[in-house]
Amino acid sequence: MTTRKLQLFVPAITPFADDLSVDTAALVRTGKALIASGAHGLAPFGTTSEANSLTVAERIPALEALIEGGIAGSALIPGTGCCAAGDTIELTRNAMELGCRGALMLPPFYFKGVPEDGVFAAFANVIEAIGDTRLKLYLYHIPQMTGVPITLSLIERLLKAYPDTIAGLKDSSGNWDNTKSVIEAFPQIDTYSASEAMIPVNATTGGAGCISASANVNPAGIRALIDGLGTPQEAELLEQVASIRKIFESIPLIPSIKAAVALQHGDPNLARVRPPLAPPPATADAQIAEAVRIAATAKGATL
Amino acid sequence: MTTRKLQLFVPAITPFADDLSVDTAALVRTGKALIASGAHGLAPFGTTSEANSLTVAERIPALEALIEGGIAGSALIPGTGCCAAGDTIELTRNAMELGCRGALMLPPFYFKGVPEDGVFAAFANVIEAIGDTRLKLYLYHIPQMTGVPITLSLIERLLKAYPDTIAGLKDSSGNWDNTKSVIEAFPQIDTYSASEAMIPVNATTGGAGCISASANVNPAGIRALIDGLGTPQEAELLEQVASIRKIFESIPLIPSIKAAVALQHGDPNLARVRPPLAPPPATADAQIAEAVRIAATAKGATL
Repeated sequence: MTTRKLQLFVPAITPFADDLSVDTAALVRTGKALIASGAHGLAPFGTTSEANSLTVAERIPALEALIEGGIAGSALIPGTGCCAAGDTIELTRNAMELGCRGALMLPPFYFKGVPEDGVFAAFANVIEAIGDTRLKLYLYHIPQMTGVPITLSLIERLLKAYPDTIAGLKDSSGNWDNTKSVIEAFPQIDTYSASEAMIPVNATTGGAGCISASANVNPAGIRALIDGLGTPQEAELLEQVASIRKIFESIPLIPSIKAAVALQHGDPNLARVRPPLAPPPATADAQIAEAVRIAATAKGATL
Repeated sequence: MTTRKLQLFVPAITPFADDLSVDTAALVRTGKALIASGAHGLAPFGTTSEANSLTVAERIPALEALIEGGIAGSALIPGTGCCAAGDTIELTRNAMELGCRGALMLPPFYFKGVPEDGVFAAFANVIEAIGDTRLKLYLYHIPQMTGVPITLSLIERLLKAYPDTIAGLKDSSGNWDNTKSVIEAFPQIDTYSASEAMIPVNATTGGAGCISASANVNPAGIRALIDGLGTPQEAELLEQVASIRKIFESIPLIPSIKAAVALQHGDPNLARVRPPLAPPPATADAQIAEAVRIAATAKGATL
């Protein structure tokens, strides 16, 4: 069993104004609240952030605002992977130049059934185009959205070609066997689970922690679990995070997470989503309220 | 049986220079050759065009170059659908202002399992943001890439809300039953098949024609089939287009189409693809050459 200290990065929601423009002030405010509640950092502009519903011109100033708002670059792993290489390069270079810890990178995700050579070349082109040893990439495996898996053999090829650049992986597949395979095959990189319920097994196998959508609602509970690993409280702490996780698995994830955050902050504006997402059904209201109630029971919870 | 005249629009390939930048001159040259060979128009910046591998800043001047190069706006239905509404609006407005016949629009395609309300709102937002009666949209149904189908009920809602804007649909699902359902339910819009092998049934059910990847290689053959519908030559003409179509169904479609076009023009540069696509395997060479040979047998073939 490893004694490595796990970390929690939150794929922070992106608040929208009533005209659906990015509400940068609310992004900074909610982001800082997550860190104040125990998150080690943010992974903004990921799936939960609706990043692919934002243009490059919207994403760059929003990331800059997080840093200007006082969040350290070392605590930020923004998502930067787009379909077009030019967009990915622009976002990734910007993140690097702002001093971010790294960039969480989707593969190009329009085409399906693409050969591994093509996916390797897509990542390689971005790395070569930026050509800077400061660049640190976290590969983003979420095949249920992209249709383009980050396979073990692809990771191996990328690590062989760019050992100083490939820094980690986020496994959003929900398949623990896959996460475990990555952790065991590539102990030199940081492998994050997408579910906080996997934190104990992530820890015992040598993983790096968790980047979870529901951490937007329960950062304190997840941090308490990380801090409580190996203590007599571990089972109880795990039960708290798992119960919230389970609620969100039965209702539309991102709209329900945003609705919960809106309840926590007393600000209905935070619940807005951009199409093609839609507000959660009214039938989810009680479950969302229950998740908020459980989140407030966490030690250190401030909302 | 309808006597409506079908049309062929070609989802033109996007040529790339050796640094993988868009080769605009080659785009115009190959695009004009397609029209000279019998295509009624182009549907550039679709799937075969690798459009989602291009940035907005690459797509706008490339479309402008096609028009400046002498292709009439009325012969152009460029693809404009991106994940981010801001990008879709910018591309669509540009296409409209350039006088294009319409815009072929993908739904936002990152998220999967989104509710129909959300997809409707995504299209509605673009239409309302542009707010111009000149706007004509062709819905792009290609669920094997997007994971977001354009359902009959969605078309019905869009037509009810925007009867003067929704002009057509391209069905790339490969499911003729679906195409037929759309044609029969919505005779007021132009429904295109993605396979030239469906041209005879498209014609007899009241469809508008075909927007097919392999039309990049065989525009003259497909045009000859359209012109020969109902003549004693129809079966032979159908056999010619279907045999080429069948070849490309057994090898990686877009890289093989580009390799075939490169052979036809005697210009290996035209074969380049951007990652995540990769060149076709060498084992496909003979099939690609055979497709080119059959294409040259078409009446009116110039390459």
